[in-house]
Amino acid sequence: MKELTARLLEAVRSTAPLVHNITNYVVMNSSANILLAVGASPVMAHCEAEVEEMVAIAGALVLNIGTLEDEWVASMLTAAKAARKKGIPVILDPVGAGATILRTEAVQRIMETAAVSVLRGNASEVLSLGSDSATTKGVDASVGITDAVVDAAREIATEQGCIVAISGEHDCITDGTKVYRVHNGNPLMARVTGTGCGLSAITGAFCAVADGPLLEATAAAFGYYAVCGDLAARISDKPGSFAVSFLDCLYAAGPNEIKACLSVS
Amino acid sequence: MKELTARLLEAVRSTAPLVHNITNYVVMNSSANILLAVGASPVMAHCEAEVEEMVAIAGALVLNIGTLEDEWVASMLTAAKAARKKGIPVILDPVGAGATILRTEAVQRIMETAAVSVLRGNASEVLSLGSDSATTKGVDASVGITDAVVDAAREIATEQGCIVAISGEHDCITDGTKVYRVHNGNPLMARVTGTGCGLSAITGAFCAVADGPLLEATAAAFGYYAVCGDLAARISDKPGSFAVSFLDCLYAAGPNEIKACLSVS
Amino acid sequence: MKELTARLLEAVRSTAPLVHNITNYVVMNSSANILLAVGASPVMAHCEAEVEEMVAIAGALVLNIGTLEDEWVASMLTAAKAARKKGIPVILDPVGAGATILRTEAVQRIMETAAVSVLRGNASEVLSLGSDSATTKGVDASVGITDAVVDAAREIATEQGCIVAISGEHDCITDGTKVYRVHNGNPLMARVTGTGCGLSAITGAFCAVADGPLLEATAAAFGYYAVCGDLAARISDKPGSFAVSFLDCLYAAGPNEIKACLSVS
Repeated sequence: MKELTARLLEAVRSTAPLVHNITNYVVMNSSANILLAVGASPVMAHCEAEVEEMVAIAGALVLNIGTLEDEWVASMLTAAKAARKKGIPVILDPVGAGATILRTEAVQRIMETAAVSVLRGNASEVLSLGSDSATTKGVDASVGITDAVVDAAREIATEQGCIVAISGEHDCITDGTKVYRVHNGNPLMARVTGTGCGLSAITGAFCAVADGPLLEATAAAFGYYAVCGDLAARISDKPGSFAVSFLDCLYAAGPNEIKACLSVS
Repeated sequence: MKELTARLLEAVRSTAPLVHNITNYVVMNSSANILLAVGASPVMAHCEAEVEEMVAIAGALVLNIGTLEDEWVASMLTAAKAARKKGIPVILDPVGAGATILRTEAVQRIMETAAVSVLRGNASEVLSLGSDSATTKGVDASVGITDAVVDAAREIATEQGCIVAISGEHDCITDGTKVYRVHNGNPLMARVTGTGCGLSAITGAFCAVADGPLLEATAAAFGYYAVCGDLAARISDKPGSFAVSFLDCLYAAGPNEIKACLSVS
Repeated sequence: MKELTARLLEAVRSTAPLVHNITNYVVMNSSANILLAVGASPVMAHCEAEVEEMVAIAGALVLNIGTLEDEWVASMLTAAKAARKKGIPVILDPVGAGATILRTEAVQRIMETAAVSVLRGNASEVLSLGSDSATTKGVDASVGITDAVVDAAREIATEQGCIVAISGEHDCITDGTKVYRVHNGNPLMARVTGTGCGLSAITGAFCAVADGPLLEATAAAFGYYAVCGDLAARISDKPGSFAVSFLDCLYAAGPNEIKACLSVS
């Protein structure tokens, strides 16, 4: 995984894939900066009239339902259709799924209609899509990714036919069969808004340049991101300066840091 | 006030109240980061279809009319109704009230319809709601909070039946009877966009955990925020790095800093 | 140019002109912070119901078509009409023009209807407006501003009757006759989202206080901005901390730095 991560990072930096984001207002700026730091090319465009043209020049499409409105779901579905036709990966970030009917239904509708490649959220958001209501009740983002959560993630991946990637302590990335766990990362990441959404964007960048299965590309994206969290936490122990250092690390960390720090099982 | 401020801060950090923001595009990211830094849980949701559900799981509702559109006012009124029913505090930030008819009328409509707990703005914005037109003309945000402004604030608080909290040099927080003045804070705060809106969000967090009158909880929020401004100004004297340090201080400052620095009369 | 740049900067700082932005979601926060850092007063307002009132109290209007929707074009046209009536400068930032029909047509419509004073974009965006399709094909933002690009810029400036200002390595600012080139700036500026949009906002601030031709005021804005990029790059060589230092420099740099660093031909 260390070699693959280094190789995909290098591919992002040398080819600067265009990552088309239809994302929420809170993180448009931070996701753009995260993509630029790692070497990708961000574009934010949500108007239904132009999303097909944007997808046509993009290497990946990232859909994010934070600050949702109805019109945005229509744009997401149109963009996802164009992405499927073009054969580029689609990342879905189900922000707040399970919290309101609007969000839960939007995610279900996108999952049914679009060919989502990777579903990236926290445990609570992802589990709200499971058929086993017992596992979804009472689960929230602060809960660790237990064995039961991993089992549920595998089930959802199999049912939905996509990669399920849960971020938290010891991230879990699975296609229903294989499971990768990432042991890097720092609690300060949760004290900076948009860190999870930024990971969805970075997953888009890594998947855009993947020359093999998206499962491994997703695990590599998660691993690199979490390593940068570790590195930033060595520079700062408070969220304002941590966020600055995190962008610096996404820009500067390379094969050496990956080799020294990455811990994926 | 020092003990109360320390106690409410500790309550925010230990219970991480969910603060539901319907706020403007400019500050969605910064308000979320300010809330996360202090230990609260931010959610930004403005779609009328989901605001009632969000209020149902929130500890406070913060309404902010910057970058206003008509549909947003409807969402704010729906959310405010749900907040009144649930009995959680509602903070209103009347950004730019007095500058355009759209904004002034929106504030008047929200004040009439919703049970606003705290009206938080600068002198110009707050005074635009007063019945005494003589005091509102020519008042702008750069004007100090003079005795005449304090008197007008008390009148508005009495007329509107809410707490009026004006930020500026020597903040003024009043319920029409009692008046608190906060003597902390630094001019660099005005050189970072969203600092005032962030204070409205923090006021929501402190009011969410208040175990006594919201007047004192609001004064405590203002006091803590301004102390963090003082502390950040010791670290940086320029706005880019000041903004970073300010978040760091909101995260790290505690009872000791409050005891050493807070100046409320 | 050094004296003019220092004089206009001083005028921005002493008069704090209100710059009215109708801009995209990604950069609303960063543009506001950039304007505040340099000493101007930002306002973001896009609702058609209030833009005329905002223009009435503004010193410049900045239109930016990133994250475009149809309603926003209507607001821009209404605001631009008010700006023409009032005689204040209008800056247009054609983000992504050439990439989608929605954007290209919006720019054409704004150029036809509004009296745009300054068109500020990268080479690809600006050239998408040219009548000579041969020059526009294959040109993208990463392409340098060659002699052919300068010639095309002059043609567009003459055809459109406005100043054309292209940012990139060796910025080009022309009214069709005179051409200024700015030799300052650093590649890290392209690794921070909203740097170009922020330059459009700063151009608005400098044009708002101009006491002579807007061509020179625009060149001064470009020059000061690029000098601050140079200064920030001396403090940090990574994008997260560079962005922070850049704001600090916009706030702190003055006549001495302009004298020592500015390179305009």
